[in-house]
Amino acid sequence: MSEIRVGILGLGTIGLGAARILIEQQSLMARRLGKTLRLVAAADRSLERDFGLDLSSVRLSDDANDIVTADDIDLVIELIGGYEPARSFVATAIEHGKHVVTANKALIAKHGEELLPLAEKHGVAIGFEAAVGGGIPCLKALREGLAANAVESVYGILNGTCNFILTKMENEGADYADVLKEAQELGYAEADPTFDVEGIDTAHKLSILASMSFGSKIKFDEVFTEGISKITAADIGAVADLGYRIKLLGIAKPHCVDGESKIEMRVHPTLVPLSAQMAQVSDSYNAVMVSGDFVEHTVYTGRGAGERPTASAVIADVMDIARICSVDGGVKYLAPPMGYVAPERQDVATLPMADVHSEYYLRFMVQDEPGVIAAISSILADHRISLEAVSQKERHATHAVAVIMLTHGTTEGNLQAAMSRIIALPSVQEDVLILRKESFGV
Amino acid sequence: MSEIRVGILGLGTIGLGAARILIEQQSLMARRLGKTLRLVAAADRSLERDFGLDLSSVRLSDDANDIVTADDIDLVIELIGGYEPARSFVATAIEHGKHVVTANKALIAKHGEELLPLAEKHGVAIGFEAAVGGGIPCLKALREGLAANAVESVYGILNGTCNFILTKMENEGADYADVLKEAQELGYAEADPTFDVEGIDTAHKLSILASMSFGSKIKFDEVFTEGISKITAADIGAVADLGYRIKLLGIAKPHCVDGESKIEMRVHPTLVPLSAQMAQVSDSYNAVMVSGDFVEHTVYTGRGAGERPTASAVIADVMDIARICSVDGGVKYLAPPMGYVAPERQDVATLPMADVHSEYYLRFMVQDEPGVIAAISSILADHRISLEAVSQKERHATHAVAVIMLTHGTTEGNLQAAMSRIIALPSVQEDVLILRKESFGV
Repeated sequence: MSEIRVGILGLGTIGLGAARILIEQQSLMARRLGKTLRLVAAADRSLERDFGLDLSSVRLSDDANDIVTADDIDLVIELIGGYEPARSFVATAIEHGKHVVTANKALIAKHGEELLPLAEKHGVAIGFEAAVGGGIPCLKALREGLAANAVESVYGILNGTCNFILTKMENEGADYADVLKEAQELGYAEADPTFDVEGIDTAHKLSILASMSFGSKIKFDEVFTEGISKITAADIGAVADLGYRIKLLGIAKPHCVDGESKIEMRVHPTLVPLSAQMAQVSDSYNAVMVSGDFVEHTVYTGRGAGERPTASAVIADVMDIARICSVDGGVKYLAPPMGYVAPERQDVATLPMADVHSEYYLRFMVQDEPGVIAAISSILADHRISLEAVSQKERHATHAVAVIMLTHGTTEGNLQAAMSRIIALPSVQEDVLILRKESFGV
Repeated sequence: MSEIRVGILGLGTIGLGAARILIEQQSLMARRLGKTLRLVAAADRSLERDFGLDLSSVRLSDDANDIVTADDIDLVIELIGGYEPARSFVATAIEHGKHVVTANKALIAKHGEELLPLAEKHGVAIGFEAAVGGGIPCLKALREGLAANAVESVYGILNGTCNFILTKMENEGADYADVLKEAQELGYAEADPTFDVEGIDTAHKLSILASMSFGSKIKFDEVFTEGISKITAADIGAVADLGYRIKLLGIAKPHCVDGESKIEMRVHPTLVPLSAQMAQVSDSYNAVMVSGDFVEHTVYTGRGAGERPTASAVIADVMDIARICSVDGGVKYLAPPMGYVAPERQDVATLPMADVHSEYYLRFMVQDEPGVIAAISSILADHRISLEAVSQKERHATHAVAVIMLTHGTTEGNLQAAMSRIIALPSVQEDVLILRKESFGV
């Protein structure tokens, strides 16, 4: 049976998961593939430790260059993470004619427009299923399963850490800071959680999803991004009373403005109706909802992170590429899987956030004086923003109290113009919370 | 640009949907595929009608043989449905070297073991994504996205008619017969609904899913099958009080019994915890939950039927096959998508239903006499079946009343042995309802 020779860069959690599959599931995969995947070599900076796995048949090196330039490797799995040196190693591997599979969303989001054309030039594939949605085969579903559709919208719960925190805040009525601390102790959140909780990781993934959905260039820097760190237990309670749940969503939609294509891309905490499928995705689970002009709504749910689920997606990419490799060390394509070699992706403009249409949840902290709600409502009315609901939970003579408003639809630009006038009111404090609300077909 | 020439058998709802995609999305698909799909010909018994679609460039025939034997067609889409003449036409198309795509679950469930090897012999592909889960790309996810996993279980809500009826019964507190009638009037259920409501359609789909999951032969005839027609509004209410919802599930799991592989396959109304993802799949939506040894739990949700969603899946298969076709009329494989040409599927035995392990919801109609619950409980205890919950809603001196019991786990054989003794009790009527209960990881 012909053989595809694999090298792994980075023996961290996911690297060891990928190695484990290549070793433990070798015969199962060979039966399905008609070819053998063989783990030939792996590189990691620290080799003096117990890997919990028999790597005696694997050539180990502390220098990734040994792998990306090796003559006896057909495919390199990059699991170092981050921008550099991952970018350099991947580029070198491609230049040496090796296929690449990576779980590195930061790399693809930031350097995809360099690496994807480079791979195309050298006739090799880059697989990055594991970079979006962890174990969920959502890029495959999007690019192949829905290939007959024009994509109408993509919604994703793409960060397990945020979803874990929001779920726990809701279930326990706990505040953000306490739950974050617990998540850090459990290993669900990093010591510096910024990438996760401020929405940057979600924006990485959304920029990749949008590019694959709309055949556009990856524009991570243009994704509007807000995180979950300003949300309080009281907000979660108030939202629940209104029939919603807060999820950190990545949202991408195509638009046609005066005949020009534009793409809406935004990441922010979002009010999701309790009855929606996306509201039921809890803890560290991820979900991607893709709607197409023929298929209507589809939802893909699974583990968004973790050694074994992420490794499952990494090796699925390896098998997809192995399937289309000419055998015995050649890297020549037989038939590239759709989207692996980037097709001619267009440079499509991003819709300015000011033009995005939404409904809003607004939480103001106000001095409880007569006329304050009237003053706020009047400014909103000036901007033709009508209200679906208003609530003020408690009354207090000296402390500021929360006033919550749910608006009907308007543009972000119009809302922000109204908000700047409202914040200037003497009875309204500056720390306003603006959440956006979405409806779903399912 | 090279061209794949397509013929359609059957211009019913889905046939017209497939034709519509091939015509309306031609340039979008060509951009993604690098090849053009061209609808060359279509056959239908009745051509004298308004198709609602410009088919002037398509050769129309009232004889499917014109298409399955035509020299200028590379791929035949079979959308006639049913066993015959669909089977004959598909066999002839394969023998004439044409790839085949079908949405016909009955055909693949019943004749897959003839047609898949025939396709392999002639070096052509059979795609049948649309036969399971309508528009959801679940076979692709299973065979390719989770290819690195040993599959541990498959659960499916696979029949939109049943799910629509059960959802409506719950929402409206309505009885089965009334909702069925409404579903028939709305076109959601056939005039003869047997295939749908008695679980046969679900069993067709489950037998295909099981085969693809476990690399086993398709054994539709061995699927244990029960439908939803015995469920009352009262059962749905009682189940809801216990924290569950009734879904018609197809369930497949692998077992190893004394060193021998066996596959559990069953279709029946099932108690699903309200908090489970599968409980949230309502109306005519379908969902497939696949759990693997690395990926853990994944769920795929979407429209299980309908012209446009089903056609989306049909054309995804066409694109997958077109991608790996050598161009310009050749049918030679370049690299078959995994599982399209059936690998060596094993003849794996089906686990006898008596050996299946489950928890049970039992509804007895009893004469409200002292000691009847004690008598039933005592027989269950004899069979070492312990109870999680017992309830008797009303008391009535003359009419029979419902007693509901929720059991802990036991085997079906043991449960049935106990049930035959319970039914023999003079105070217990014969129309007992037995529902099975499942737990889910997500």
